[in-house]
Amino acid sequence: MTSQEIRVGLIGFGTVGKGLAHALLSQHDRLRQRSGISFRLATVADIGISGLPEEFSASRFSRDAQDIFNDPEIDIVVELIGGMEPARTFLLEAIARGKHVVTANKALLSVHGREIFQAAAAKNVEVGFEASVGGGIPVIKALKEGLVANRIDSIMGIMNGTANYILSQMTDRGAPFPEVLKEAQVLGFAEADPTYDVEGIDTAHKLAILMTIAYGLNVRLDDITIEGISSIEPIDIDFARKFGCRIKLLAISRNHGSHIEARVHPTMVPEEHMLATINGPFNGIKFRGDTVGDVLLYGQGAGMLPTGSAVAADVVDIGRNIVCGSVNRVPALSYLPEHLGEPTITPLQELVCPYYLRVSALDQPGVLSTITGVFGRHGISIRSMMQQGRDAGEPVDIVFRTHRAVEGAVALALAEIDALPVCTAATVKIRLLNPE
Amino acid sequence: MTSQEIRVGLIGFGTVGKGLAHALLSQHDRLRQRSGISFRLATVADIGISGLPEEFSASRFSRDAQDIFNDPEIDIVVELIGGMEPARTFLLEAIARGKHVVTANKALLSVHGREIFQAAAAKNVEVGFEASVGGGIPVIKALKEGLVANRIDSIMGIMNGTANYILSQMTDRGAPFPEVLKEAQVLGFAEADPTYDVEGIDTAHKLAILMTIAYGLNVRLDDITIEGISSIEPIDIDFARKFGCRIKLLAISRNHGSHIEARVHPTMVPEEHMLATINGPFNGIKFRGDTVGDVLLYGQGAGMLPTGSAVAADVVDIGRNIVCGSVNRVPALSYLPEHLGEPTITPLQELVCPYYLRVSALDQPGVLSTITGVFGRHGISIRSMMQQGRDAGEPVDIVFRTHRAVEGAVALALAEIDALPVCTAATVKIRLLNPE
Repeated sequence: MTSQEIRVGLIGFGTVGKGLAHALLSQHDRLRQRSGISFRLATVADIGISGLPEEFSASRFSRDAQDIFNDPEIDIVVELIGGMEPARTFLLEAIARGKHVVTANKALLSVHGREIFQAAAAKNVEVGFEASVGGGIPVIKALKEGLVANRIDSIMGIMNGTANYILSQMTDRGAPFPEVLKEAQVLGFAEADPTYDVEGIDTAHKLAILMTIAYGLNVRLDDITIEGISSIEPIDIDFARKFGCRIKLLAISRNHGSHIEARVHPTMVPEEHMLATINGPFNGIKFRGDTVGDVLLYGQGAGMLPTGSAVAADVVDIGRNIVCGSVNRVPALSYLPEHLGEPTITPLQELVCPYYLRVSALDQPGVLSTITGVFGRHGISIRSMMQQGRDAGEPVDIVFRTHRAVEGAVALALAEIDALPVCTAATVKIRLLNPE
Repeated sequence: MTSQEIRVGLIGFGTVGKGLAHALLSQHDRLRQRSGISFRLATVADIGISGLPEEFSASRFSRDAQDIFNDPEIDIVVELIGGMEPARTFLLEAIARGKHVVTANKALLSVHGREIFQAAAAKNVEVGFEASVGGGIPVIKALKEGLVANRIDSIMGIMNGTANYILSQMTDRGAPFPEVLKEAQVLGFAEADPTYDVEGIDTAHKLAILMTIAYGLNVRLDDITIEGISSIEPIDIDFARKFGCRIKLLAISRNHGSHIEARVHPTMVPEEHMLATINGPFNGIKFRGDTVGDVLLYGQGAGMLPTGSAVAADVVDIGRNIVCGSVNRVPALSYLPEHLGEPTITPLQELVCPYYLRVSALDQPGVLSTITGVFGRHGISIRSMMQQGRDAGEPVDIVFRTHRAVEGAVALALAEIDALPVCTAATVKIRLLNPE
């Protein structure tokens, strides 16, 4: 087979951009042996640097992305600058010029995805986004192709390595959130502004993308209930352990047919569950299909080389399609555009699951009876109760595990309980994983 | 997009055949929404039945596979009868007629793979074999496409659900192998002749396939060292537990560049390792890539519907290529035929790993000194020793855990020890997982 050349233009030479550049260089011969195609990093554009390291001297450098759009020889434009703008404009510009695009930008796709995918469909170019979810784990390809003959009934996973690292450290060492966060920032596991990671927003971006391709529904960030881990305290991790559970920041979606659940929040997971065993900066994503049953994919959810591996896989996929004349052989969002529907989201108030509720109250006679009375009036059935021993007259932690209860009823009950004169702080509520 | 039709001929209406038929029927509309293609099960051939169940009345039934080969309208022939013949002849016949083929037949591929892939290449037809490894888990696609930009450095996994189920039951209940096997047969988790599953042969078939596509080397069954689980005793499972380990039947391959390790045997795995947490009939397969790091895929490694899901994914993949004119867009064995090499296998005698050795000896003064003297002369360093207390003068179990030692030296030492007059039975040897 004659070797054909595919030329890549890269915008953004940050961590992931370097990973892609490294992957294309170090794997060049292997990719040619596997595809018959020579993948060449033609141009790198970045406004933050003045040139490329020596090893990439075969690539042109520019401080202007227009040099990539204007180059008729570039087949695929890879956007790895992140954020909304100018990433959105760059992708649309590349598409308008008839170039295929690859991005790892989950934030952009979960907000402006529809605009980008429609523009790409109109120009018949491809949009690769494997690296937007699960770093190096080929999760998008598994969902779009490997599990193609499945109605996906649920998605559940640990999709943010920073949050998982922090929770793992808090669990292993009993250290409080602010201390572990600070360490993670020093070690490079958390960014200076950790909001997206620890408040669950990044996880929600990823869940929106997975739901869209799994269900064939245009899911947006706004459709997802989001709670982060910054309010988790060591005492809650301790109680979880007593119940045989670990606290994990999970993305959870269930497809009920007429409506779908979509939520990201700290969740108590039984320690024998595979997701409970995924620690440190790793990701694990589980799909349940009606044909295949449960499939779980695990690996590094971030990092220069793992993410570079996923971006390179998209580049190769698109390169094969260019060479074979089979562009958009697999629809970008798994379903053909005319079969994408709009989701009906289960209102959070209608969610049903077991709850962990930690009430802070003064240790006075009758307190327990008052609190359990409130639960009873709201139809919330208690599975177990535990009181952390303190001195009489001092505030104590009273922990309840409920049977499956309705979120709306729990909210009303907690509003009543927290207004009681004996209650000294807002009740901490953590959802438990529904039995599967 | 106009809906095109792809017609499938199925040979073999056993468990997996029924799974494919069910998947194509139940997912027909979904597959059309995802590909624009109508996949139709045109003909089913099976000599063991007299007709198809009512729900498949839209398909023709035949007792002669030739009816499928002779039908010019059939695009893809799926072989799901298993075994060597007539499966091999059927696949070659279908290929000779210019039809694409899909199979789940790992035994056939690991022995006659080269003949089949060469015939397919000569006729420019596709060979799909996703279901041959890991049941419904899209492990072949992950390796060929998702991890394309990686040199694969190791493969490690639990690839046989029957063996894993038996070991899990032995571990949970302390029951002996023959008892658990009999139960598994009654429950349908083990076949009447369980040899392939419990003796590691099925696992080796799968490892040969994975190594071939991971490394670009023509690995055959003969290249793999194989030991099964039928000699594992409850006492060894107990000792493993004392060392914080579980015994798993693992496929292990490491790519050392100039030579590759290829082995299937019971292995003591630290209980915190992800592979130790995979229980019952599930499979888990881990790849280490130089770019992506570790990726693990988990799911049901067998069963009607999960395997049907993987076969259907191959059918869809090939159907897309037929419609797009992109046949063999991805080489069947991941590397282009001209880049497939021959493996150099690490001789088993040169393997280096820690060992668990259970010596059965009479409880006499000086025995321990004699045994450890033999280890010392062969350069085998002992990490820990444990003796199971019994009555004096009776045979006792003396368990040694070694540091990393050379297999050849261990074999020589054990030959000497087992020949000692005080030794009452052959020493049990179980390899430990090398630290990663």
